[in-house]
Amino acid sequence: LSAKYESLDYDVCENSLLLEEERRRGYPYILRMGISRWLVMCIIGAATALVACVIDISIDQLTTLKYRVLKKFTDQCILENCLVTPFLLWASFNVCFVIIAAICGSCVEPVAAGSGIPQVKCYLNGVKIPRVVRIKTLLAKAVGVTFSVAGGLAVGKEGPMVHSGAVIAAGVSQGKSTSLKQDIGIFEYFREDREKRDFVSGGAAAGVAAAFGAPVGGVLFSLEEGASFWNQSLTWRIFFGSMVSVFVLNLVLSAYHGQPGQLAYAGLLNFGKFDTLNYDWLELPIFLCMGGIGGLLGAFFNQLNYKLSKFRMRHIGHRAWMQVMEAMIVAATTATAGFIMIYTIDDCRPIGQDPNKFSIQMFCGDGEYNTLGALWFQTPEASVRSFFHDPPGSHHPVSVMSFFIVYFLLAIWTYGLGIPSGLFIPGLLTGAAWGRLVGMGLSAAFPTAAWVDPGKYALVGAGAMLGGIVRMTLSLTVILIEATGNISFGLPLMITLITAKWVGDYFNEGIYDMQIGLAGVPILAWEAPPLSRTIYAPQVMSHPVITFSPVEKVRNIVNVLKTEVHNGFPVVEHSSCDSEELGRSCGRLRGLILRSQLITLLQQRAFNEEPALLSRHIAMKNFRASYPRYPSIREVELKEEDMEHTIDLRPYMNPSPYSIQHNTSLPRIYLLFRGLGLRHLVVVSDSNQVVGVVTRKDLARFR
Amino acid sequence: LSAKYESLDYDVCENSLLLEEERRRGYPYILRMGISRWLVMCIIGAATALVACVIDISIDQLTTLKYRVLKKFTDQCILENCLVTPFLLWASFNVCFVIIAAICGSCVEPVAAGSGIPQVKCYLNGVKIPRVVRIKTLLAKAVGVTFSVAGGLAVGKEGPMVHSGAVIAAGVSQGKSTSLKQDIGIFEYFREDREKRDFVSGGAAAGVAAAFGAPVGGVLFSLEEGASFWNQSLTWRIFFGSMVSVFVLNLVLSAYHGQPGQLAYAGLLNFGKFDTLNYDWLELPIFLCMGGIGGLLGAFFNQLNYKLSKFRMRHIGHRAWMQVMEAMIVAATTATAGFIMIYTIDDCRPIGQDPNKFSIQMFCGDGEYNTLGALWFQTPEASVRSFFHDPPGSHHPVSVMSFFIVYFLLAIWTYGLGIPSGLFIPGLLTGAAWGRLVGMGLSAAFPTAAWVDPGKYALVGAGAMLGGIVRMTLSLTVILIEATGNISFGLPLMITLITAKWVGDYFNEGIYDMQIGLAGVPILAWEAPPLSRTIYAPQVMSHPVITFSPVEKVRNIVNVLKTEVHNGFPVVEHSSCDSEELGRSCGRLRGLILRSQLITLLQQRAFNEEPALLSRHIAMKNFRASYPRYPSIREVELKEEDMEHTIDLRPYMNPSPYSIQHNTSLPRIYLLFRGLGLRHLVVVSDSNQVVGVVTRKDLARFR
Ligand SMILES: Nc1ncnc2c1ncn2[C@@H]1O[C@H](COP(=O)(O)OP(=O)(O)OP(=O)(O)O)[C@@H](O)[C@H]1O
Ligand SMILES: Nc1ncnc2c1ncn2[C@@H]1O[C@H](COP(=O)(O)OP(=O)(O)OP(=O)(O)O)[C@@H](O)[C@H]1O
Ligand SMILES: [Mg+2]
Ligand SMILES: [Mg+2]
Repeated sequence: LSAKYESLDYDVCENSLLLEEERRRGYPYILRMGISRWLVMCIIGAATALVACVIDISIDQLTTLKYRVLKKFTDQCILENCLVTPFLLWASFNVCFVIIAAICGSCVEPVAAGSGIPQVKCYLNGVKIPRVVRIKTLLAKAVGVTFSVAGGLAVGKEGPMVHSGAVIAAGVSQGKSTSLKQDIGIFEYFREDREKRDFVSGGAAAGVAAAFGAPVGGVLFSLEEGASFWNQSLTWRIFFGSMVSVFVLNLVLSAYHGQPGQLAYAGLLNFGKFDTLNYDWLELPIFLCMGGIGGLLGAFFNQLNYKLSKFRMRHIGHRAWMQVMEAMIVAATTATAGFIMIYTIDDCRPIGQDPNKFSIQMFCGDGEYNTLGALWFQTPEASVRSFFHDPPGSHHPVSVMSFFIVYFLLAIWTYGLGIPSGLFIPGLLTGAAWGRLVGMGLSAAFPTAAWVDPGKYALVGAGAMLGGIVRMTLSLTVILIEATGNISFGLPLMITLITAKWVGDYFNEGIYDMQIGLAGVPILAWEAPPLSRTIYAPQVMSHPVITFSPVEKVRNIVNVLKTEVHNGFPVVEHSSCDSEELGRSCGRLRGLILRSQLITLLQQRAFNEEPALLSRHIAMKNFRASYPRYPSIREVELKEEDMEHTIDLRPYMNPSPYSIQHNTSLPRIYLLFRGLGLRHLVVVSDSNQVVGVVTRKDLARFR
Repeated sequence: LSAKYESLDYDVCENSLLLEEERRRGYPYILRMGISRWLVMCIIGAATALVACVIDISIDQLTTLKYRVLKKFTDQCILENCLVTPFLLWASFNVCFVIIAAICGSCVEPVAAGSGIPQVKCYLNGVKIPRVVRIKTLLAKAVGVTFSVAGGLAVGKEGPMVHSGAVIAAGVSQGKSTSLKQDIGIFEYFREDREKRDFVSGGAAAGVAAAFGAPVGGVLFSLEEGASFWNQSLTWRIFFGSMVSVFVLNLVLSAYHGQPGQLAYAGLLNFGKFDTLNYDWLELPIFLCMGGIGGLLGAFFNQLNYKLSKFRMRHIGHRAWMQVMEAMIVAATTATAGFIMIYTIDDCRPIGQDPNKFSIQMFCGDGEYNTLGALWFQTPEASVRSFFHDPPGSHHPVSVMSFFIVYFLLAIWTYGLGIPSGLFIPGLLTGAAWGRLVGMGLSAAFPTAAWVDPGKYALVGAGAMLGGIVRMTLSLTVILIEATGNISFGLPLMITLITAKWVGDYFNEGIYDMQIGLAGVPILAWEAPPLSRTIYAPQVMSHPVITFSPVEKVRNIVNVLKTEVHNGFPVVEHSSCDSEELGRSCGRLRGLILRSQLITLLQQRAFNEEPALLSRHIAMKNFRASYPRYPSIREVELKEEDMEHTIDLRPYMNPSPYSIQHNTSLPRIYLLFRGLGLRHLVVVSDSNQVVGVVTRKDLARFR
């Protein structure tokens, strides 16, 4: 576990300043803040949808341009026998687009690389990933994912939408941005970790809603990853934000596609309209097997990608030019693989049932089109739709099988590159491919059965594959149900996803959890490991504890802040020390003070010996002003005589921090810590003396 | 607040017996219990669906019989001019059916009366409503609601489905039933409040899923009402149970309606298939207004029903014969009102667009049918579908308006009778009626506009009305979205429901909350009232506290249990009393012991002075054996010499009860209490001395 990750302060510090502010401002202010929260959530939803639309429209324009040119040259060169030209064109398009994406994800802002879902998971878990919610990250992500998808790589744009939503939420709710050096100042009340994390939950949900057209799935995603106590008003607001997101996206995309008012574009990822999705209960065992296959393939995918990631960590590290290089190679390889497949496999179908505008004839007869050409000359989402909705007999098994193998290997290679990239579409596409194969096999085995619909099996395969890779349960099921638009098909999807998860979990973790583990982020699981009731607080906590007195000398404070890296310090009364307690772990618990609060107090010179300054009233706004980037202790300027002054910590500390008895078992500690989103949990003895402190890193060891 | 309601013990008592059992049984047992929980949830889902099917099929058969006979006689008597006959027949059918329903809901089991949703809300909140999850209640409810609906009253069957699901869950998970005097004994591990409440959450969700075809709505309903810490595994299991419920219901009903495999019956409440549900963003203000109207009408409904309920409480009380009488009067009145409407209002439409099999001609010409006859001669669900799907121009505004007024008043009168009855359908039907009126008005105002679809406005009106009456937010929105099957229409529904709730909340509470308030149940809201940070534990808690010593004399225990009504007693060490503490509130907190545990110990004669019996090992199974109905202290037989013996409470008590410092503010107390589902929260002083105890009744005062 890496020591560099800090946690969010989700707990409310009810010190005298907060009570004073509440008393002074009264109920109208509370009401106004409540309305502001709804307004901000509405803006977050709309802005997330607009960003999603911009990305989608840009990708549409770029890919249309690219495939139009490619089609033109291919059709021409088939006759003139100069097929090298479209091949080189394809490779160049890919490489050029991907260079831009790689620059965004490697040089401009490395945090923007990858899907963004692991980072958002960590943030909702309570861990601050540095620079993860900055505007710069958003821009790098949006531009990068546009060019990744346009560059024909095996990526999707849905995962980055969740990250974008989180960034938009963090930016809008704070009313200020470090990247843009702007400070609007209207949302000063929201400048604390708690409000920010709540808004980021809403932003992530809006991102999921925009990406998949799944508002309820977005809410469940936020709830699952946050895993705190049930907050009714927040959940309702998040739901509202997701709905607004879906609505705005629908509006804009419908207008763009020339069908204003039709509202047919519920999400970026459009599964298309299934005519019927009936299933017989006899098919359930088939779905179960497909879930198992999805789990196996997903575990295989994760294992290979894990090995590749470790290889990259060792040999590429953070060298941006090498990351760009690797991305270029992958781009060129993708074009090459596609071209070779189209060139060698002559799977021809009559034009008429072809959904792709840029299908090419290649070596087929007149009035026919090359199936693999149709699969490759479109965005991956469109290929997914092809597998779902093309009538039976649209593909030859060999084409589908080869497409699956090639795309599967490319997806393993692509995920983890230094480019913004989503993982949902590659998972869905590979799954749709082998699912369709299963459907084709079944229709060959039972030629007269009405229930064999290759499109349905493609859908189940897509769910199984994605479930096997990401191992998300509740939110993924609801997302897929909403994306399909069919509640009755929820049970097969659920059974498939459960099986994929159980089979995959037998071998390794989900890919996001692997990534988080590789980065050493101290993320907390949903509950303590089983049979851990015999582990008690003394085995979990850290001791001895660094504490402060209620009235503490500045010299002590500065020394402690300089020598230790802790962020929370219990405030104890040393006078009531028991003679048995040794060392510094002594004294009755009075409160808890944070490093950020001490730094602010030192900056504001809240010394007892300077009553003039004290009567100037340190207020909540002083603490909010430097949020979120407080200066380090070395940046605080203090004169030598200040060191002899004292600070009274009592008005500023948290007077009732959560504390547990020393005989509390691990499951109870875990429940309290995770459920309340705590950062510090003080362990006290039988007589309320501080004996230890429990933080995230202490708990994250137990898995 | 009534003092008679007890709470559930949701907290886990980690005493030495539990640790011993866990250690002895090890990981395979944990695994087996985990699998059992999934199996039980699956059974709960399937059983709930089967009960729903039985109810639905019985209602279908009874109403088909009734309306066939009525149609026959009406058609006959129109020609023979003997219309008294069908009127008397109608009234007799209604009265006969309703007598059976009233006997179920008033004599057999009064808890079965009403919708059951308030009782389930209370149970999930943590309050034990007596007899609410007994098999007898289930039978009374199922039979009663069948005959209520068949009796033509303004009721629905969906609310009772939730209650049935809860009962099935409680019964199946415990493996024993007091009503049936059966004890299967396989689920002995689940015999405690925590497991039971978790399963009841699953059962309630399965009930919602079966009733509305809304599995995700069911999960959100359970989560909303439970409002505890996020429990990932439980939520996933509840979702699975809901899915199984929807699937089984779909299977059985499809087979019954002769379309096996079609799976077109996702829920009991079938909104029918909407061809298109497009809306222009210009319509959103109209939806907003409709939400406001729904809020006003809902507040009006609730206020009248409240006054009626108080009247009933004063004059009818619990006298079963008077309740049956009132139900009979309402049944006759319903038939009379319907008959008068059909007789007097001659709204005739040509046959062809008529969806009702039993439509009658009355005084219309040949080839025509009477609109109001079509509305009255079918179940309310079918009337809702009529309003949603009948083509424009199917009704005359006067018929719809009169139907609305009459049905609205009947619904107010019907809810609160001593019969099992649901409230969702009357709310949806009245809302669909005035919504359709709005739609008709709009199409008269804008004859050429394509977006005016009376069915769409009927849907919005139905949502607004229901939202105005029940004031549920998150779960109701998702339920309606799933029942409609259209995610894009989620935003209008959401806006409508938000507005209806806000407008209605200005006047009074939702109807379920009113009912709960009338019964004096100490239910806890989602969070503490605003601006309550200045209220601290001493203003909330009870003091002095009745406590026990770790080794306590039997005489003391028996005396305390006989004279006090408390159910939880802190265990303190008197030796470390501070001299300042007065009276009995003294001593360092060591643990918490429950009345049920003390009773079991007394019954098992776990005295220190009888080591032979002690070495027989009191184990967890002794405590589970008497669950859930422990004998009272007077039923425990103790000899005179036993009174001088002592019991060592330490192996059996909860050694680490949740405790809070005396300077904890009310919001923090509330969060901990509600979030963990606690029953007792001990308040300690600075030196860990017990000074008070907080229970539900102390917190429920603050609203
Ligand atoms: N005041 C303290 N006195 C002694 N040990 C502490 C104190 N605070 C934290 N620790 C311990 O130091 C180790 C590192 O924790 P760290 O200092 O990073 O905590 P933190 O920064 O306050 O919280 P986090 O890193 O989770 O945001 C942990 O094992 C923790 O228990
Ligand atoms: N051990 C105790 N000593 C003193 N007062 C108590 C004790 N337990 C409960 N009370 C107080 O008695 C009042 C009635 O509570 P009651 O006895 O019904 O609690 P309970 O039965 O333990 O919990 P509940 O009724 O919520 O299930 C409350 O104000 C409560 O705070
Ligand atoms: Mg730290
Ligand atoms: Mg009580």
